[in-house]
Amino acid sequence: MAAFKRLLIGRPLKSTELGEQKLNKRKALAILSSDALSSVAYGPEQILLVLITVSTAAFWYSIPIGIGVLFLLTALILSYRQIIFAYPQGGGAYVVSKNNLGVYPGLVAGGSLLVDYILTVAVSVSAGTDAITSAFPALHEYTVVIAVVFVLLLTLLNLRGVTESASVLAYPVYLFVLALLVLIGVGIYRVMTGEVSPELHTPVGTPIAGISLFLLLKAFASGSSALTGVEAISNAIPNFKSPAPNNAAKTLSAMGILLAVLFSGIVALAYFYGVSPLAEVTVVSQIAEETFSRNFMYYFVQGTTALILILAANTGYSAFPLLAVNLANDKFIPRMFTVRGDRLGYSNGIIILGLLSILLIIVFQGQTEQLIPLYAVGVFIPFTLSQTGMMVKWIREKPAGWVSKLAINTTGAVISLMVTLMFFITKFAQVWSVLIFLPIIIFLFHRIKKHYEAVGDQLRLATCEPAVPIEGNVMIVPVSGITHVVEQSLNYAQSLGAEQIIAVHIPFDREEEARFEEKWRSWKPDIRLVTLHSPYRSIIQPLGKFIDVVKRKADESNYQVTVVIPQFIPKKGWHNLLHNQSSLLIRAHLLYRKDIVLTTVPYHLKK
Amino acid sequence: MAAFKRLLIGRPLKSTELGEQKLNKRKALAILSSDALSSVAYGPEQILLVLITVSTAAFWYSIPIGIGVLFLLTALILSYRQIIFAYPQGGGAYVVSKNNLGVYPGLVAGGSLLVDYILTVAVSVSAGTDAITSAFPALHEYTVVIAVVFVLLLTLLNLRGVTESASVLAYPVYLFVLALLVLIGVGIYRVMTGEVSPELHTPVGTPIAGISLFLLLKAFASGSSALTGVEAISNAIPNFKSPAPNNAAKTLSAMGILLAVLFSGIVALAYFYGVSPLAEVTVVSQIAEETFSRNFMYYFVQGTTALILILAANTGYSAFPLLAVNLANDKFIPRMFTVRGDRLGYSNGIIILGLLSILLIIVFQGQTEQLIPLYAVGVFIPFTLSQTGMMVKWIREKPAGWVSKLAINTTGAVISLMVTLMFFITKFAQVWSVLIFLPIIIFLFHRIKKHYEAVGDQLRLATCEPAVPIEGNVMIVPVSGITHVVEQSLNYAQSLGAEQIIAVHIPFDREEEARFEEKWRSWKPDIRLVTLHSPYRSIIQPLGKFIDVVKRKADESNYQVTVVIPQFIPKKGWHNLLHNQSSLLIRAHLLYRKDIVLTTVPYHLKK
Repeated sequence: MAAFKRLLIGRPLKSTELGEQKLNKRKALAILSSDALSSVAYGPEQILLVLITVSTAAFWYSIPIGIGVLFLLTALILSYRQIIFAYPQGGGAYVVSKNNLGVYPGLVAGGSLLVDYILTVAVSVSAGTDAITSAFPALHEYTVVIAVVFVLLLTLLNLRGVTESASVLAYPVYLFVLALLVLIGVGIYRVMTGEVSPELHTPVGTPIAGISLFLLLKAFASGSSALTGVEAISNAIPNFKSPAPNNAAKTLSAMGILLAVLFSGIVALAYFYGVSPLAEVTVVSQIAEETFSRNFMYYFVQGTTALILILAANTGYSAFPLLAVNLANDKFIPRMFTVRGDRLGYSNGIIILGLLSILLIIVFQGQTEQLIPLYAVGVFIPFTLSQTGMMVKWIREKPAGWVSKLAINTTGAVISLMVTLMFFITKFAQVWSVLIFLPIIIFLFHRIKKHYEAVGDQLRLATCEPAVPIEGNVMIVPVSGITHVVEQSLNYAQSLGAEQIIAVHIPFDREEEARFEEKWRSWKPDIRLVTLHSPYRSIIQPLGKFIDVVKRKADESNYQVTVVIPQFIPKKGWHNLLHNQSSLLIRAHLLYRKDIVLTTVPYHLKK
Repeated sequence: MAAFKRLLIGRPLKSTELGEQKLNKRKALAILSSDALSSVAYGPEQILLVLITVSTAAFWYSIPIGIGVLFLLTALILSYRQIIFAYPQGGGAYVVSKNNLGVYPGLVAGGSLLVDYILTVAVSVSAGTDAITSAFPALHEYTVVIAVVFVLLLTLLNLRGVTESASVLAYPVYLFVLALLVLIGVGIYRVMTGEVSPELHTPVGTPIAGISLFLLLKAFASGSSALTGVEAISNAIPNFKSPAPNNAAKTLSAMGILLAVLFSGIVALAYFYGVSPLAEVTVVSQIAEETFSRNFMYYFVQGTTALILILAANTGYSAFPLLAVNLANDKFIPRMFTVRGDRLGYSNGIIILGLLSILLIIVFQGQTEQLIPLYAVGVFIPFTLSQTGMMVKWIREKPAGWVSKLAINTTGAVISLMVTLMFFITKFAQVWSVLIFLPIIIFLFHRIKKHYEAVGDQLRLATCEPAVPIEGNVMIVPVSGITHVVEQSLNYAQSLGAEQIIAVHIPFDREEEARFEEKWRSWKPDIRLVTLHSPYRSIIQPLGKFIDVVKRKADESNYQVTVVIPQFIPKKGWHNLLHNQSSLLIRAHLLYRKDIVLTTVPYHLKK
């Protein structure tokens, strides 16, 4: 078992080896930006899908809308740059909102992101799997199995630790960037040299009947889904090599520039080629086919796109555990999320994320595309909150140059809010559930916090009265027969010099009762035996009642009651199936129900 | 939870109420013969399915073959009658074979029957469900769900107790018998009055080309599948009101007569009507339609047939737990099968049977018909063994009239063996797996027995050296912090006057280590504190090593080592999720790995 674990995730690492696990910029860009970069595979398409409801002539609007998205992207990147320096310990939307707007806005941001990372994994892996099964239709019926296997692989990679997974992930991300850059370069060259017919596109500015501001805003909101994932870097600052904030800021800028280039390139080529969105073929695929026809480069673009979609899920694996640690340190979620595993990753967060996304994939049978709007809303709510938080911070602190900083964050906040509202107005059918689950999650956060605080109060020594001294001990030994196991427990109780030792036997019929009492008298005449006849064949009920009686008497003279349970331990695990686990049942019942000490005296069998 | 259980299965019954749960003859006939009687719904059809491979003209052979099956039935009934009186404590094939042929033949019989009862449940319920979904095709896609629900209902009925389920089951069984008797009566009347054209059937004796002895034997073996279930009564004698053997024998005769009448009637009508087996319509259904056309009686026959098929599964529920008790008393399967539940049924057997048949239904997606030959072989192997056992018994004991008794059992044994061999020769593809799983089961039986004997030897007081006296106690208290929980455990250890108390702290980093040691010195200067630095963040490993060291020293002076584990118990169960369950983990690890006493001192939180 231990050897198998080692094989899968590698040897355990010492706490002091943590520094070596940190990310340099090149690896960080790969590991933290796959989500954002992969969005260009579906973002531009989302814009066209809205515009086509009017006519293909309206496609020229994708150019101004694309510029709008670039504007939002710039605002977000600049804004997150400011957050990185303001919160070098990791400034996710949760931390920024909590510190500047208060606990509840912080929890709204944290709660949506927590759920969102699960959606990231499920949606990205499903999309990547779809890309593969589209290429190899024979695999289609195994979609769910394939997606689950990918999630398991990602979970394993992340359990092995952050740097090792980065090494594996770096190649596909950079190959994808390379593929798209070549595609855009060749495409633009073809447009410039006039190889592409200018009749394929309507000139920008052509008046179109039926276009409305509402529709344009809807197209803009849909296109903004290409920006999901830009927050990942600011959450993960503690994973960077020092100086962490500087490295993170540089990585963020690099990602912003790459994202801007790829996004504009795809939007532009789609416009010049006059690409219409189709059900079976993606926009990127159409552009690649138009540019290269079906040669090696076409398959290279398609292959790296599929890969990066699956790897985009990895952003969830980097961000979820870190956010969980922040929430757990503030006692809003279980403490187990703060524990580092053998390989220094936060294993519990990684495992839970994997399990929940597998659950989503199975429940939705791999058809998670319908979750994309939900997922986008889950990103833009925390965007809005963190930018608003930054606004409050600048107004409150007024550092040098705060006006321009405020302007940047205000722009970001307004656009993010607008995008969020657009989603609610134009796609309510797909995003209403956020209004149900967010309050539930926040309620849970609240309850968990209250519980931890109550426990802390009760355990703290200063706040409670001193413990009652123990004046003596009563030991109860349940005995099932006259055997070595029982003898050992009785010897043990006697060796502790307890003031009173009571052996308890629970027969199911009267005959057995008499027989046992007689045997006992000749075996251990000096130890008091109590027999409790049990007509309903239950051991726990009569024993529990008897303990209550003893306990009441013992309490009067401050005596402590201990139940000493004889238990024999078979040599092999499967042997346990062959024995009535009465002692375990008794123990579990008494531990949670009665205020008594429980002692197990094991008797290890030798064969 | 307890209230829900009560609602489902009723109030617990006292052990002394057992007598009231016993069966009278009328109920016993219903509860124990549904399996055998329901077989007439498919037995005759199996004969025709073999004959049709030659030609429909060969159908007249079903008459002599049917007479052969009746002959086998008579031999089996007479033989089991003898078994009932010879083994009034319940003479299943297991007991009879074991007592007369030896342990291994007994285990072969017991093992095949144990598996067979699971097949009974799965096959019968699936067949009944098919009958229902044939009538209402819209339900077809829910076959598996419906079958599983039926198994769950049967499990519940049987957990409620044997008489109550008998009351529910008596009606459908008697209604089925009534329906078939009316069908056969009206049918024979129509044949006698010449309403049925005599051209529909070939006269008995017509020479047919291509018929072979092999084919006739195959048809005979297939028809014998109508006899599955006749052994149920002899297994269940302890369930009868006294005088149990007499009542059981009378019930057996009644069942034999009913089965003979129904079987001959269906075979005869099928012959006279010239019915050919069809894929979609059963033979019984064709006869009923021919006799009544589609009026109320037709649906009555079909409905009761479906019902009795489902209830045939109940025979498994009566027989499996009783056989399991026999095997468990002989220590071949886990002892838990001998425990009576709240309602005095052997609940563990009932629950395990239910779970395994649900598993079969799900694995075979409700298409369990392919298991019928396997199921028949699983019945005829124990038939053969128990009859052979009776032969040995008569030869050995030679009671009055033993020659005729021997003749009866010899006839039964020879025919059963022949049927078994026929199945292996003619349907090897479907029954080969019995040759794999029977040896596995018998190997398991053997290992379990050996384990129980080894345990018994080790626990028995007489056979071992006297226990080493305990000269003193060392108590180790793992402490995670300075809290009430820890204080309580330390107080408890001190109250027992242990010779040595050692508090153990396991810090993950050096800073924490120094801080804790300082705090400890001012809090409990009189208790020795050992800190074990753990660079790999594991608590169990360093603690285990430390315990080993202490234990080695303690053993030298016959001191007993006890680990006292402080554990706080949250007020509500779900709160456990919020705390690292270190104390439970430590306990589980130490209990199975180390030979030390484990004491849990619970600290119950009040809020």
